[in-house]
Amino acid sequence: MKGNRTRHQVVIVGGGFGGLQAARRLGRAPVDVTVLDRYNHHLFQPLLYQVATAILSPGDISAPIRGVLRSRNTLVLLAEARSVDLARKVVVSDGGEIPYDTLVLATGATHSYFGHPEWARFAPGLKTVDDAREIRERLLLAFEAAEREPLPEVQREWLTFVIIGAGPTGVELAGALAYMTRHSLPRDFRRVDTSKARILLLEGLPRVLSTYPEELSLKARKDLEKLGVEVHTGSMVTGVDDQGVYVGDTRIQARTVLWGAGVAASPLARTLGVPLDKAGRVKVEPTLAIPGHEDVFVIGDLASLVQDGKPLPGIAPAAMEMGRHVAKNIRRQLAGQPMAPFRYKDKGSFAVIGRGTAIGVLYGRFRLSGKPAWAMWLGIHITFLIGFRNKLAVLFDWAYTFLTGRGDVRLITSLHADKLPPILPPRPPEKVEAVRVAPVPGSEPIPVH
Amino acid sequence: MKGNRTRHQVVIVGGGFGGLQAARRLGRAPVDVTVLDRYNHHLFQPLLYQVATAILSPGDISAPIRGVLRSRNTLVLLAEARSVDLARKVVVSDGGEIPYDTLVLATGATHSYFGHPEWARFAPGLKTVDDAREIRERLLLAFEAAEREPLPEVQREWLTFVIIGAGPTGVELAGALAYMTRHSLPRDFRRVDTSKARILLLEGLPRVLSTYPEELSLKARKDLEKLGVEVHTGSMVTGVDDQGVYVGDTRIQARTVLWGAGVAASPLARTLGVPLDKAGRVKVEPTLAIPGHEDVFVIGDLASLVQDGKPLPGIAPAAMEMGRHVAKNIRRQLAGQPMAPFRYKDKGSFAVIGRGTAIGVLYGRFRLSGKPAWAMWLGIHITFLIGFRNKLAVLFDWAYTFLTGRGDVRLITSLHADKLPPILPPRPPEKVEAVRVAPVPGSEPIPVH
Repeated sequence: MKGNRTRHQVVIVGGGFGGLQAARRLGRAPVDVTVLDRYNHHLFQPLLYQVATAILSPGDISAPIRGVLRSRNTLVLLAEARSVDLARKVVVSDGGEIPYDTLVLATGATHSYFGHPEWARFAPGLKTVDDAREIRERLLLAFEAAEREPLPEVQREWLTFVIIGAGPTGVELAGALAYMTRHSLPRDFRRVDTSKARILLLEGLPRVLSTYPEELSLKARKDLEKLGVEVHTGSMVTGVDDQGVYVGDTRIQARTVLWGAGVAASPLARTLGVPLDKAGRVKVEPTLAIPGHEDVFVIGDLASLVQDGKPLPGIAPAAMEMGRHVAKNIRRQLAGQPMAPFRYKDKGSFAVIGRGTAIGVLYGRFRLSGKPAWAMWLGIHITFLIGFRNKLAVLFDWAYTFLTGRGDVRLITSLHADKLPPILPPRPPEKVEAVRVAPVPGSEPIPVH
Repeated sequence: MKGNRTRHQVVIVGGGFGGLQAARRLGRAPVDVTVLDRYNHHLFQPLLYQVATAILSPGDISAPIRGVLRSRNTLVLLAEARSVDLARKVVVSDGGEIPYDTLVLATGATHSYFGHPEWARFAPGLKTVDDAREIRERLLLAFEAAEREPLPEVQREWLTFVIIGAGPTGVELAGALAYMTRHSLPRDFRRVDTSKARILLLEGLPRVLSTYPEELSLKARKDLEKLGVEVHTGSMVTGVDDQGVYVGDTRIQARTVLWGAGVAASPLARTLGVPLDKAGRVKVEPTLAIPGHEDVFVIGDLASLVQDGKPLPGIAPAAMEMGRHVAKNIRRQLAGQPMAPFRYKDKGSFAVIGRGTAIGVLYGRFRLSGKPAWAMWLGIHITFLIGFRNKLAVLFDWAYTFLTGRGDVRLITSLHADKLPPILPPRPPEKVEAVRVAPVPGSEPIPVH
């Protein structure tokens, strides 16, 4: 074994599912591992929509990366990688250059606005904790604004929600929002009936959850409609602003628009100067190394690999398997052995639609829907959650939500006076009285004691 | 009873401990109640320092106001009250004027920088959820910056924390931070020893927690010092900037400064045009009404009332009692009965110092400290937490923290490249090698399988 000064330096960029697995599996290897991430926490992204819809707290689904990676050969640094210089073997970060002997890139994907970056501020997407908080705040604020709004037509706009894209994120958001408006919120409002809120799910393709078999897409659509979601497939959004969207020439007035559509690889990929696929992902060899660069691996959503004629799916289990595989190949390289090709074993995938309903495919063959699919989805997510505490805390929050039917992490923490409508006074003028829910007729004076 | 059109309108400004109690007690009275708050949630402020120190999530200690106040005569509006016009009997809000028949002001207090508002951005105080997140992010970021920092003298500045003011908030923050640096964090860092972090608690008065008996102040000081906090009493801060503070002419270099000092009443008080005390609180009659205005009540931290020669303390139990009392007086007024004077019954108060230690006074006579005081503090806080879910979630988080010794809501969710130092490369130049913790000597190559 070499001395410390010349230990082999493995640099891993990204503390998501792939990067974390790679780092863990190298925790006892004779290398120095440096993990860079621009956030200090690993995020269990599959449940992020539950933060956005006020069911879970951000802390429930995240864990500090340095708390997870406590091997003494592993250094965790809060830093943003800006580019990679393959020739000089350095990662250029916001804190300077970090040299590597072996590099693992696992910076994942972000949302793409199909060439319309100006839509981003009107229709936030869901990738980070701050994204989830922003969406949560917008959703909650819309109901608060509706309760204040004196004009019925504007009130309807506040109670109209458009979700663009019916992939897993869009479907999850639509389903959770439908539940929120129909079950959690109605009793809390006096002037508006939140159960009348319109939730429109717009999808450009002919069906929802289009990576699943057609039969399951149809079931998902029916379940969404049963929950109260208006599903519009084949509906390409052509414009987004702060008061609604255009689908072709049709205008939909809505004060809240959310983005669940396109995915684009992290921009770090473009700095490599190697071939990328259409979504900007790095085309990798079956070993997961970049062609011609056996010292640079790319994994997770940032990697593009075709297996049996199909691209690998951008889901957490695939990223985790790749992370483990890269750790194995690095150890093989160090031992002078040839690298092994990666083979993804598809155990299955699930998409949740709403409380008590989901769809899923197991081992590429068994198709599930409704309650059984949801029960499996629940079990899988609890099992995979990293860290003891998170599991129990999430179980607890979920149990509460199901017992009471109310998500309760309803926090608006910033001030929004600029966005809110004028208030209909508690004693409103005669003509708009109709908007108002009548006060309790049966309430009696209580004797003073 | 009058018809709905002319129901008596009670407007309550503020959804804190006082406002919430008043609204609840009027929930079945023959009045319309409107509650205004600029936030949508009630905050259990006594535990906010645990959010700031990454032990609890904001959702654990807050509850949506409209979820708490679900009586059908009660309307909750997200709105900021800007002034009160006593002559015209309207509250001027960001959404327009809201007329009242009876007004209850319960907007509490904010921190005061003793005439130095420019210190606020260098030394954040702790009143809102966003304040707590800001402090949490600054604390966590300081350790991340220290881990990156190549220069030992700057590293020491990142590991120096100054807390100004040794009232309950300052003491709580100092104690929790000491625990964090000594117990939760050390194993997670490689290049710095967080247990060497300096925590300075600066107090202008001669002792800490000066509203408590001197004997308890001394015990608190000893406990703080045992936890690793450097307590400096009689130390008036004369300057604050982004790299430290001045105490008189003495400079203390510190990259993180927190504010736990002065309290000032909410600025709404000044718009009333009635006599205020030195801290800007409204002087109220024993009925809790403003002198000469029997239709306007002021409660909680916004009210100034001297009882038995002593001002009422600005604590949650006092605010809650005042809220209940005002509801009673309003019902008496409606029934044509004379109002009752308020009498605060001091059941006691506690200040927590750190894990397992606190001080407290019960019924003005029994003095507690150490573990017994802490156990009582714990029980009282759990009992008072509003809402079933919160109680259990907090219990759970606390239990976790005590079992593992680690707070785990360690979230940095914004990007801070501009604030972070350059990175000492993983393979640093010879001369600074000493800064680095040596890699594991005993780690062996793992056979590839």
